Amino acid sequence: MSSIYGRNIKISIFGQSHSEAVGVVVDGLPAGHRIDVEELQAFLKRRAPGINEYSTKRYEPDVPEILSGLVGGVTCGAPLCAVIKDTDARPEDYDSILDSPRPGHADYTASIRYKGHNDKRGGGHLSGRLTAPLCIAGGICLQLLAEEGIEIAAHILSIGSVSDASFDFVNVDAEELKILKQKAFPVLRDDCGERMLDAIMNARQDGDSLGGVIECAVVGLPAGLGDPMFDGVENRVAGIVFGIPAVRGIEFGNGFDSAILRGSTNNDAFYMDGKNVKTKTNNHGGILGGITSGMPLFFRVAMKPTPSIALEQKSVSLSEGRDIAIEISGRHDPCIVPRAVPCIEAAAAIAILDMKVAASV
Amino acid sequence: MSSIYGRNIKISIFGQSHSEAVGVVVDGLPAGHRIDVEELQAFLKRRAPGINEYSTKRYEPDVPEILSGLVGGVTCGAPLCAVIKDTDARPEDYDSILDSPRPGHADYTASIRYKGHNDKRGGGHLSGRLTAPLCIAGGICLQLLAEEGIEIAAHILSIGSVSDASFDFVNVDAEELKILKQKAFPVLRDDCGERMLDAIMNARQDGDSLGGVIECAVVGLPAGLGDPMFDGVENRVAGIVFGIPAVRGIEFGNGFDSAILRGSTNNDAFYMDGKNVKTKTNNHGGILGGITSGMPLFFRVAMKPTPSIALEQKSVSLSEGRDIAIEISGRHDPCIVPRAVPCIEAAAAIAILDMKVAASV
Amino acid sequence: MSSIYGRNIKISIFGQSHSEAVGVVVDGLPAGHRIDVEELQAFLKRRAPGINEYSTKRYEPDVPEILSGLVGGVTCGAPLCAVIKDTDARPEDYDSILDSPRPGHADYTASIRYKGHNDKRGGGHLSGRLTAPLCIAGGICLQLLAEEGIEIAAHILSIGSVSDASFDFVNVDAEELKILKQKAFPVLRDDCGERMLDAIMNARQDGDSLGGVIECAVVGLPAGLGDPMFDGVENRVAGIVFGIPAVRGIEFGNGFDSAILRGSTNNDAFYMDGKNVKTKTNNHGGILGGITSGMPLFFRVAMKPTPSIALEQKSVSLSEGRDIAIEISGRHDPCIVPRAVPCIEAAAAIAILDMKVAASV
Amino acid sequence: MSSIYGRNIKISIFGQSHSEAVGVVVDGLPAGHRIDVEELQAFLKRRAPGINEYSTKRYEPDVPEILSGLVGGVTCGAPLCAVIKDTDARPEDYDSILDSPRPGHADYTASIRYKGHNDKRGGGHLSGRLTAPLCIAGGICLQLLAEEGIEIAAHILSIGSVSDASFDFVNVDAEELKILKQKAFPVLRDDCGERMLDAIMNARQDGDSLGGVIECAVVGLPAGLGDPMFDGVENRVAGIVFGIPAVRGIEFGNGFDSAILRGSTNNDAFYMDGKNVKTKTNNHGGILGGITSGMPLFFRVAMKPTPSIALEQKSVSLSEGRDIAIEISGRHDPCIVPRAVPCIEAAAAIAILDMKVAASV
Repeated sequence: MSSIYGRNIKISIFGQSHSEAVGVVVDGLPAGHRIDVEELQAFLKRRAPGINEYSTKRYEPDVPEILSGLVGGVTCGAPLCAVIKDTDARPEDYDSILDSPRPGHADYTASIRYKGHNDKRGGGHLSGRLTAPLCIAGGICLQLLAEEGIEIAAHILSIGSVSDASFDFVNVDAEELKILKQKAFPVLRDDCGERMLDAIMNARQDGDSLGGVIECAVVGLPAGLGDPMFDGVENRVAGIVFGIPAVRGIEFGNGFDSAILRGSTNNDAFYMDGKNVKTKTNNHGGILGGITSGMPLFFRVAMKPTPSIALEQKSVSLSEGRDIAIEISGRHDPCIVPRAVPCIEAAAAIAILDMKVAASV
Repeated sequence: MSSIYGRNIKISIFGQSHSEAVGVVVDGLPAGHRIDVEELQAFLKRRAPGINEYSTKRYEPDVPEILSGLVGGVTCGAPLCAVIKDTDARPEDYDSILDSPRPGHADYTASIRYKGHNDKRGGGHLSGRLTAPLCIAGGICLQLLAEEGIEIAAHILSIGSVSDASFDFVNVDAEELKILKQKAFPVLRDDCGERMLDAIMNARQDGDSLGGVIECAVVGLPAGLGDPMFDGVENRVAGIVFGIPAVRGIEFGNGFDSAILRGSTNNDAFYMDGKNVKTKTNNHGGILGGITSGMPLFFRVAMKPTPSIALEQKSVSLSEGRDIAIEISGRHDPCIVPRAVPCIEAAAAIAILDMKVAASV
Repeated sequence: MSSIYGRNIKISIFGQSHSEAVGVVVDGLPAGHRIDVEELQAFLKRRAPGINEYSTKRYEPDVPEILSGLVGGVTCGAPLCAVIKDTDARPEDYDSILDSPRPGHADYTASIRYKGHNDKRGGGHLSGRLTAPLCIAGGICLQLLAEEGIEIAAHILSIGSVSDASFDFVNVDAEELKILKQKAFPVLRDDCGERMLDAIMNARQDGDSLGGVIECAVVGLPAGLGDPMFDGVENRVAGIVFGIPAVRGIEFGNGFDSAILRGSTNNDAFYMDGKNVKTKTNNHGGILGGITSGMPLFFRVAMKPTPSIALEQKSVSLSEGRDIAIEISGRHDPCIVPRAVPCIEAAAAIAILDMKVAASV
Repeated sequence: MSSIYGRNIKISIFGQSHSEAVGVVVDGLPAGHRIDVEELQAFLKRRAPGINEYSTKRYEPDVPEILSGLVGGVTCGAPLCAVIKDTDARPEDYDSILDSPRPGHADYTASIRYKGHNDKRGGGHLSGRLTAPLCIAGGICLQLLAEEGIEIAAHILSIGSVSDASFDFVNVDAEELKILKQKAFPVLRDDCGERMLDAIMNARQDGDSLGGVIECAVVGLPAGLGDPMFDGVENRVAGIVFGIPAVRGIEFGNGFDSAILRGSTNNDAFYMDGKNVKTKTNNHGGILGGITSGMPLFFRVAMKPTPSIALEQKSVSLSEGRDIAIEISGRHDPCIVPRAVPCIEAAAAIAILDMKVAASV
């Protein structure tokens, strides 16, 4: 198993849904950067469960304890380790799943992979809980990027069949992104957000769940970041984003839509904006040949509906080798998309800071 | 720049569109496997340019010369290096682009990234030509996987707005994939293929180009391959697939479509098929938690339209700092999707063999 | 900074001499192995300070808290994180060194490397304290290797000019190594050990320190482990052993002595021992071409004398830019070689388990 | 097998002693550096066989063909691939060793490792011939380092029991190193060199071989390069140097000698030299805590005697499982130490440029 990501900024994530703690080591952080712990805490709160009606009732305050890497609040060049202790675990909720894999979950595949020794409580290491340490690492990277004027924010582009507007690919700016990050329910059009919340409530009442799409923007990136082939922005961002449970797809710029366009429409014309080279449209989403163009960077991530639903489902008894029906008790989000928004921002921040550090070569 | 991919099977790709040669080193191939050079050659021919009316007129026979790694046609455990010499280059075709970046191409971003020293002839290292060595490495990996009953094949799911049928996610089998790989134009429904060819011809007549979507299937995979977080099947496959020029998005299983479903529909029910655990549907595309389930693996890749078109486009003169109009001469594919099909298969094969080798731990 | 080592078994070490905690994440441990925590604790005790007269008076019980990776004492495939909380730190002892680098220490180089932001208390991340988490990881790897009959033990070959006997390169066996590991002062000839202790006491009385050489043996290794070039046993072992502070050199087999021999003497003749191929002598120390031969593996590590001594030394005031004399207070080992013995065993165990996992390919 | 080294500058070496070609891909070279091919050729000539009486009679002009990575002689940011074609192979010389492993060679271990499929001609990938591509990569890195005033040179410190003087650890400078590199037989004291040559000739007459020690110096390095733990200068340099066949040990600064000193003698006092911090002695060899101090860097490498000797030796017949006597025919160096000198320089250059690129973060 490799829960380690990165080349220059390397993160190593550990913990299981109900282990003593979950946490992360961030290795390679440059020295001399002050970390605002309150800001980090505020960032983590956006991911934390239990804070509103559409998320799981499991309440984890998610207060990270920083064990190393800071001196007087400033990075000292040594690996930073932060842990979150488990405070509200109820592992008994998961007793029934020990023998019967939950549809849509990794219970079955993990059991094969780890020969039955995987931690079965709450999905073990394959739980969404592990996005908490991802957000710690990402929250720190976001602060370092912000020092250089790079802002990252995401919004919910759709929940089920309810859609928000897209970013303005050409004109989105840092201010807009900062405002977006302060929203309790991060959408561009609040009326769309309300309809999304309705859809979530409906799904919950039905004992069901919903997926959605998250759209992420990065502004302030210099041109010339990334490399062709296997170190492109897309490879790097995809390489970490697929580490977030429930992600099923990723696209950059106009992505799958580009496949139905002709080249004359899809190509973005260059022009001079004073002394700067820009493009009039931004179908390329800020990346050409794996390398940033200086235009805003965009990508979208598809998230499947939470597999944990209250409805009865069909599964098997592994021990008895026969089909059975199961019901999943416990506390679960009818839609994890809102809580995944900061995770996507975190993942993007880690990938980009890692590339940025390499690019200063 | 890192044109190296992999952890156990590592490939290192080199060359530029018009350098002496392009090639690849494959490090870590297990010893004792016979490589069928004719079969490899046949595989490469599917990617080769100049073989039919819808591809560039540049003709490269793409005959690889294997410099090391084989003894008597059998892998000896040493790194295998194969090169393809450049035989039909006409670098003068690209003179006009040296100062004016082609819209949709990486000319501008590469120029910034490499401070103007990048090889500008034909896109240099950022050319589709580099998929030839990718296919050499992939073709070899395909042969090793086939020894264990693992088959990989892709088809053109759409060109512009013309669509093929999808694979049968549950019932696709190795025989179907083998047949598919022998088709000159790899689609499931040949009538759809004919309409795709019409669309390509129309675009060419208009001096324009088209993109499309490729769908890839892998059958015969054991359950339990891959890891959660950053070593999942998705991370690994995406990490190499985005190395293919023009790829803009990737999705696994039902991908972006899962985002509009409810959990009760998207979850795949488990059942016992004799002594084997299977799922009745296969929305998960053979991967749960980054780990294979033993069901067929599916993913789809969006490719943008070839940016090289015959129409006049707007660009800038980098030296003069002013807007200009450009026309791109040279020989270009109106649609690279058909030739990208074996590249996607190759990329998948490399990623999966690399994981398979690691999983034998 | 990269305090991450390994390819398949990856360890990520964090902490500073006086941070909240030091610890390690071990990523990639195969699932299903019971970890004997008492045995681990006993192993760590061999490295722990404060336990006898020749080591620093700083007393750290070094009780690791395992935060993740075990379920019911058995590895679950998820990354294992273990931390040791700081319980007896006296950072004030180090006030005087903040401006004046201690000769032989990394105070100066770390200050340049981390632009003055490095944790200066007790050497920060560059402290011998970080060998505690190395020993946690190594102690776990030792247990997994022992399951397969692989034993690793080291002894003090010399302290200053007092030498112990060498291992019998051909006949050393697992029993001998197990006995060696139970010795309070690990030497092959206890009379040599007593003279070493005298030498250490003399150095202490003089306010001075001593270095030494550690010799490590590994028995039970299969032939065929490792690879030529950059993944050889030597590269891998050296790559981790040099992570232990004060290590200045490493040699395998007869090492530097081989340089004065003729080939006819240095070559080890092969012979058949029943059905097994063995060598009559073992100058090659169990490695030929980076690959194990099945003979016992040997290497020796040179450790410089502890740079912290009580005598007055010459240094500079970095702030004032002038030469000064300094005295180092605080509690320091007059000789860290005895405590380094388990660290060397730990490092070897990590390197070998990492290779072993890769070799099962 | 991993014949890939490096993190930012990555080299991938391929080829066997008698394959079509040997070569190297250098990935990550910064763009915009002119490579002087004649200088590279002159550097390679120092390693080339057949050029004088003490080396093998096999003559390989070792003229590299650069297939990619340069445009007009200047690095373009794309991976550089260089190959050397095999021109004088006589594989029949090795027929007798196919069944009987040569003592001191890796024939036996490679056969186990690669299940009998390894290329047995001339040691295959485990041949000293593979240092030719190492020297190509290193020769290029040396040129890039020289642009920044960093010079690397090594000399033969001893052959058998004949010793040269050591470098002056404190005062060695770039001029001295440049002169050293132009010597046909690189020693500091030519009279010692003559006695070394006598010793080699004597060994050859006896059908025997000799080993030796090489001492390497690096001047012009800035302070602050490298990292503690696993990315230290020592780890990195050792990680590549052990890739050179016949290397048995490495030590930095005063190395193993430090183990017999007291701290008061071994510690190097700091002093101000104008505005620069220097040390009066240089026992630390330019590295403290894995990080460069700005003082000259030193290391020594032990090389065992060439295992190929003309004398009869004892081995086994693998097929018959019985002891036999063998004689090795073919052309072999009685002492490879002189030819290994540029290899050590090359290895150091690659490791240091790789670190330097990372350190510019």
